[in-house]
This record gives sequence, structure tokens and C-alpha cells, in this order.
Amino acid sequence: MWFARDKLIRFNHCDPAAIIFYPQYFVLFHELMEDWFNEALDTPYGEYIRTARLGVPAVRADCEFLSQSRLGDLVRFQLEPLRLGKSSLSFAGEAWGGEELRARAQITVVQMSLETRRAVPFDERLRGNIARFLRAVP
Amino acid sequence: MWFARDKLIRFNHCDPAAIIFYPQYFVLFHELMEDWFNEALDTPYGEYIRTARLGVPAVRADCEFLSQSRLGDLVRFQLEPLRLGKSSLSFAGEAWGGEELRARAQITVVQMSLETRRAVPFDERLRGNIARFLRAVP
Amino acid sequence: MWFARDKLIRFNHCDPAAIIFYPQYFVLFHELMEDWFNEALDTPYGEYIRTARLGVPAVRADCEFLSQSRLGDLVRFQLEPLRLGKSSLSFAGEAWGGEELRARAQITVVQMSLETRRAVPFDERLRGNIARFLRAVP
Amino acid sequence: MWFARDKLIRFNHCDPAAIIFYPQYFVLFHELMEDWFNEALDTPYGEYIRTARLGVPAVRADCEFLSQSRLGDLVRFQLEPLRLGKSSLSFAGEAWGGEELRARAQITVVQMSLETRRAVPFDERLRGNIARFLRAVP
Repeated sequence: MWFARDKLIRFNHCDPAAIIFYPQYFVLFHELMEDWFNEALDTPYGEYIRTARLGVPAVRADCEFLSQSRLGDLVRFQLEPLRLGKSSLSFAGEAWGGEELRARAQITVVQMSLETRRAVPFDERLRGNIARFLRAVP
Repeated sequence: MWFARDKLIRFNHCDPAAIIFYPQYFVLFHELMEDWFNEALDTPYGEYIRTARLGVPAVRADCEFLSQSRLGDLVRFQLEPLRLGKSSLSFAGEAWGGEELRARAQITVVQMSLETRRAVPFDERLRGNIARFLRAVP
Repeated sequence: MWFARDKLIRFNHCDPAAIIFYPQYFVLFHELMEDWFNEALDTPYGEYIRTARLGVPAVRADCEFLSQSRLGDLVRFQLEPLRLGKSSLSFAGEAWGGEELRARAQITVVQMSLETRRAVPFDERLRGNIARFLRAVP
Repeated sequence: MWFARDKLIRFNHCDPAAIIFYPQYFVLFHELMEDWFNEALDTPYGEYIRTARLGVPAVRADCEFLSQSRLGDLVRFQLEPLRLGKSSLSFAGEAWGGEELRARAQITVVQMSLETRRAVPFDERLRGNIARFLRAVP
């Protein structure tokens, strides 16, 4: 099941061609993951980082940039988890400008303690909330 | 008259103390100015840059940072124009976390041609739309 | 043949764990590509963008993050072109902290006109300069 | 006494006019302060943040942007401390493109514990090292 939010392509995302500079796509996919934690996983991301001292750094990030997004475009970012391990999570990411697929990503993150910088298994509650979004296997 | 929008303090705004890194305040005040163009000045900012080939670079930016904004905080950003010249505009900016004033800025921008990189006077329509926000002199 | 430069992991690259936020790896690989243009390809990157009005946006970027880079680390970034098409270029990227491979990327860019936003073949001179770095096929 | 380093204006600093986006000046003045800690104050900045868990957030930052810096420009950034308090430091910052003054800043930072987020007095060693750069009063 996809989780989606619209994002405006801002001046600070853009390069001298007035199109998005590609690392900013990864920043926006990260914003989307924050929105997902805040709004769908019942895990306020600020507390997750600051109080629980957990984080989800990427161990792999792949993205195809299929078509350009320009300053002022409203782009629909969406993600869907693909695989949920003990402490790792892979998700598909897509960015759509209207009917046009602009970018298609696959990103793997690992839950880490910000104190020890080691992997930490997801607890049952967060795991359950993520699992509800896993693509149903037919 | 103030123009205000709420902004979420994001992971990418934050430093190793999980508080906003101060140049990001200026990025967020710029986002607010884009919102103002888009939503209140009848001047879609993407077209302003890409089609009209105009821009509003800063010639001066001053900001006091009074209290820290942390990852996950929802902060109310607001601006009010103070002086409107032929091609220049000074505005006050404020960032509020609830009842707490977090940052207080004064920023001056100049309308510039992206082609010639020279100052260009505001046209009557944009000038009029900005002027409606000028603080009333009692 | 690898082209390499050392990069310092800066405060503005880092997240609340004081490690590099992963989109910044792509920013640093882009800096490395700029260095390569400036210092090895006899193509000053500023003139390439501003005067020739060309650019090299990414059409694909994949990266594995194998080990964390922390604030203050000096990291050796290197790239080697893998395939050189008419207007496209794929290169391998690596980031090393001492003897430790921190990140391994593969990035494909396409030369584009900033005016028309269409692909433009590399000219003979730039093609030749890039080709000198192509990995020798045994 | 000024501390100076050259900085290259990078693609990621630039806006759709191929000139530096002004918040990036503050990022570059911060880089300069990191260089100063690393190279002149005998205080490696990475350890200062990660081990000592100290930081120097800004409480005030003012900057005039006098002339544009373009992609590819090599700009000389320099700072000189003006006032050194118990836990606060104000410094002048300048950015020069050849003989042309591009930006002139005044920035005040406060040494803060990243744990308690409260001000912490500079210790004698760091205070002494900073004091050597204070402008001599005639």
C-alpha cells in the first residue's frame, strides 16, 4: 500500500537549469519517510530521533531519474515498503508529476541507535505499523 | 499585514544537536517568500523565475536566533513588508514555536533579471499586490 | 584510471548522529565530478555551465553505504568512467576512509543543453579527455 | 588578525541564475569557522562536536551581499574575532572575489553543551587560542 504526499519543488532544490538537483530527490524521499512516521506509523519522527535516540540511515539508495522536475512543480512522492527485516526496511519510492513518472527509487534503511551506532531491531508496535503497508503477495 | 505559514523542522535542517542549523532559517524564510508569491501575490514563483526570468536575490539578511527549534517542531514563519522601493523590498521575518519567538529577521531583496543580472523595477501589478501587505502607518 | 580528491566531512553534511546524511554523499560525488572537469578534463565547470550553457544531470544514481563517515573525517572520493556514450557517461564512485570502503556508487549522467533541456553529444575534445580515464579493457 | 581560506563556488551552492544562493554564504562562513578550529585553534572540530559534545550555534547573523559570486568563482573567505565573552564570540566575516568585496558579515555564536543545550564558558586553552586573533586595539 502506497503512502503519498505532494511536495513543491522549491528554489533551494534547483540548479542553474531551474530543475531539481538530483540529491534533492533523496532529501525529498527522506521527508516523505518522516511524514510516514509522523502521520501513518504513529511514531513522531522528532521524538524517535531526539528521545528514543534511534535513526534510520540508508545502507543502499538507487534511483532512476526519468523526467525533469522544474521549479514550482507540485510532485507526488510515494513510498511502499517491500521487505521488512529484523532491523532493516526496503521500500520503493516514486515521484509523479501528474501522469508522468519522474523518478523511481529503491532505498534500504536500517534502524540504528544514535548512541551506539549499531543496528537495533524494530519493536513490535513499529514493526506492526510498517507491516500494514507491505505490498500484499497475491 | 503578516503572511504566515507553518513549517516542520526536518531531519535535513538539523545539526548534530538535533536543532536547526541556522542557515536553514534563511532557507525557510525563502520558502515562505515563495509561498507568499504563490498564494498571496498572484505571481507563481516557478513561472516568475523560469518564464519571466526574474529573481529576488538578497542584498542584506540579518537574523537573531532567540531560542532553539528542534527536529519535529512545527514553527510558524511569518513575514511583513517594511519598505517597498522601485526594485527593492525589505521585510521583517519572524519564526514562532507556539508563544515563543524563536527567530527575528530583516531581509532586503532586489528584483533582478536573471539574464542581465541587473535590478529591474517591479511592475505595477506586483507592486500593488506587495503594497497591500505594507504595515499601515498610523 | 581513477580520479581522486580528499573531502572533509563538514558540519553541514551531518545529521543528529554526527554522521553524514546520505544525500550529501551524492553532493560530494558531484563536487568530485566538478573537480574532475576543472583539474583533469581541461573544462572549467563554471564556464561549462554559465557560458556553454551545458550540464550533466544524472539519469541514474545507485549507492551502497557500507560504513559510516563521521563529522571531521577526511574521506577520499574517487571516480572512474565505465561507459562513454554519445551524450551519456557512467562512472563508478568510491569513498574511502583510510583503508575502509565507506560508499560505492554508480552514477550515469547525460550532457544536456540548459537552454533546450535536450541531450547534446559530447564534442571531440571533451570526449577525448574523458576517454583517457576509461578503465583499460585487458 | 584575519584567518582566511579560499572556497570554490560549487554547483550545489547555486541557484537558477548560476549565482550563489545567499544562505550558502552562511554555510561557507561556517566551513571557515571549522577550518579555523582545525587549523589555527588547535581544536579539531569533529572531536569538539562528537567527543567534547560542544557546539557553537549562532545567536545572531547579519550579512550584506554586495556583489554576486558565480558558479566556479574562487572566493577568499576570512574571519576576525571582534569580541570574546565568557561563552560568546562575535566575529567579522568577509568574502572577496579578487579585489571585490562580495559579502560582509557579523556573526555571534555561543558555546553550548550538545547534551544540556546550555551555554558553557570557553576553557582557558581555547579562549587563549581565540584571543590571539582578536583585533589589536591601538
